[in-house]
Amino acid sequence: MISAKGYAAQDPKSLLAPFNFNRRKPGAHDVQIEILYCGVCHSDLHQVRDEWGGSIYPMVPGHEIVGKITHVGNAVARFKVGELAGVGCFVDSCRVCESCKAGNEQYCDAGMAGTYNGYEMDKKTPTYGGYSNCIVVDENYVLHISEKLPLQAVAPLLCAGITTYSPLRHWKVGAGQKVAVVGLGGLGHMAVKFALSFGAEVTVLSSSASKEADARKLGAHHFVNTRDKAASKAVRKKFDFILDTVSAQHDLNFYLDLLRTDGTMVMVGIPPEAEPVEAFSLIGKRKTLAGSMIGGIRETQEMLDYCAENNIVSDIELIPIQQIEQAYERMVKGDVRYRFVIDMSTL
Amino acid sequence: MISAKGYAAQDPKSLLAPFNFNRRKPGAHDVQIEILYCGVCHSDLHQVRDEWGGSIYPMVPGHEIVGKITHVGNAVARFKVGELAGVGCFVDSCRVCESCKAGNEQYCDAGMAGTYNGYEMDKKTPTYGGYSNCIVVDENYVLHISEKLPLQAVAPLLCAGITTYSPLRHWKVGAGQKVAVVGLGGLGHMAVKFALSFGAEVTVLSSSASKEADARKLGAHHFVNTRDKAASKAVRKKFDFILDTVSAQHDLNFYLDLLRTDGTMVMVGIPPEAEPVEAFSLIGKRKTLAGSMIGGIRETQEMLDYCAENNIVSDIELIPIQQIEQAYERMVKGDVRYRFVIDMSTL
Repeated sequence: MISAKGYAAQDPKSLLAPFNFNRRKPGAHDVQIEILYCGVCHSDLHQVRDEWGGSIYPMVPGHEIVGKITHVGNAVARFKVGELAGVGCFVDSCRVCESCKAGNEQYCDAGMAGTYNGYEMDKKTPTYGGYSNCIVVDENYVLHISEKLPLQAVAPLLCAGITTYSPLRHWKVGAGQKVAVVGLGGLGHMAVKFALSFGAEVTVLSSSASKEADARKLGAHHFVNTRDKAASKAVRKKFDFILDTVSAQHDLNFYLDLLRTDGTMVMVGIPPEAEPVEAFSLIGKRKTLAGSMIGGIRETQEMLDYCAENNIVSDIELIPIQQIEQAYERMVKGDVRYRFVIDMSTL
Repeated sequence: MISAKGYAAQDPKSLLAPFNFNRRKPGAHDVQIEILYCGVCHSDLHQVRDEWGGSIYPMVPGHEIVGKITHVGNAVARFKVGELAGVGCFVDSCRVCESCKAGNEQYCDAGMAGTYNGYEMDKKTPTYGGYSNCIVVDENYVLHISEKLPLQAVAPLLCAGITTYSPLRHWKVGAGQKVAVVGLGGLGHMAVKFALSFGAEVTVLSSSASKEADARKLGAHHFVNTRDKAASKAVRKKFDFILDTVSAQHDLNFYLDLLRTDGTMVMVGIPPEAEPVEAFSLIGKRKTLAGSMIGGIRETQEMLDYCAENNIVSDIELIPIQQIEQAYERMVKGDVRYRFVIDMSTL
């Protein structure tokens, strides 16, 4: 085994603290990565605090991982020692179901192996995430990372990036379309960047007037404060596509009303409780409400390559790992522009 | 004006009773139809009893209308006196909005003119429906009816038929797909007929075990009693497409769980209250929940022609108009196989 160190939660109530643990020795198909940066996703906090239930402790969070390859197994064909590499939200899947074969490993019928707070495909070996100094992953679940971009700002692409890129691509969002992004946080700011890059006319919908300047700075064409009734009414039936990144409770019918006939709204956030949907909100104009979860390995690589070509990264605030709890507190208050990234050299 | 007679509700509480009223004299673009049969839709009852709110009285219900043309205006090009004709759920729309131009008049931005319990496009002349001896409609909102099929069994195609045909066509349901139909009533039995005709493998999902024999008789390949937990579990993640015809409250998450990755469920019924949707029911496997409402004139004609070619009609029970209240009572209990149709010669 390999000795690893990181930060872990021991239970839902205590603070994250230094933790020593073992990782498997790299097998023939494995890549060992020295982790340089790890993004801080809101889901890290939900899981650390067991807010979704079923959390597994000790938990080393983190699934926006970038670093440098320090070892490759004998059978590894696609990676070399010294190259940059990334790991996202999962480290394995069954590889034989229809979803896996189609490159949609995130929808694996057997359940993907989450990068942390999960188990390897043996369903008993716990997985530990990126708030640590190294990770060992099968090469089929490792991404190539370009040298062109600032590495710390690439880390959030592995979750916030692909989570927004994938639905925008799947539903073919592009030029000539009016797109709204609901919520301007870690996911939302990436959605704005991608939708703009794909040529859409982009509106940010937010309940905080203070986000308007940010939205404009990101290049959004329009901003609507959803607490402003007149402004909201003015965009009724206006959008072809809405990407809803909000994971707090919110009224879906309000947003569905902003779609034109045959419009689509896709949820990527998971509110704690089920949201009531009026049948007529969908039936009245043949509207679609859908959901999307991260993206497959092939599409994640495509997204990373697209970002390298088009100079797209996340807006981040780099923190030492010792400040993770303060970062969580600020994240809960929405006080982050737009993603905390841990500098793992501080470990 | 033309003197017309029919059956009307005077308020939400009283029974339908004979009613004399006027229709406009046919203008240059109008077709006058002697109504021979009119289907009885569950929405007739909802509106007569003001269960959706906003009902307009006196109300002559009925939007599944077939009959014979007795007069055509000077400018009418597509219809001749003596021909069969049909009228569905709307008799006009703005004709200039994007939806109208695309042939989706049912999604007209100005709001279509409902065949009854609505207003003409002047938004003040009330419309009266098919529980009457005649109707006058602009030829652009009149359908050709083939002589090939039993006319009384064609009437329900104008609502129950197009409401199920349209989403099955829009979402390209066909051979190689596993389709489930939720609910086996007026809409559901038509959905089964169309889905079978389009080559899909069809399962009926119903909470009444008694519907199994009916489903088999209609040709459905499978039947699942949704109260049977083991049987329901066996069809988890099985369907490409679910057509949900239920207008009572029901748990959408239960049905979404039966969709495979990228599957679509379309609602055509309107439950009285909003239904809670778990975000993860959609996000977990990139599923779609959509709605669909009747169909446009072009597509309704396509559906009627398809039915004539493929010998598809509704299963009906013919009643004299004097039995409409008993029919409503039986409809509420689900005691109809599958649509009541009024023989208008009994008026």
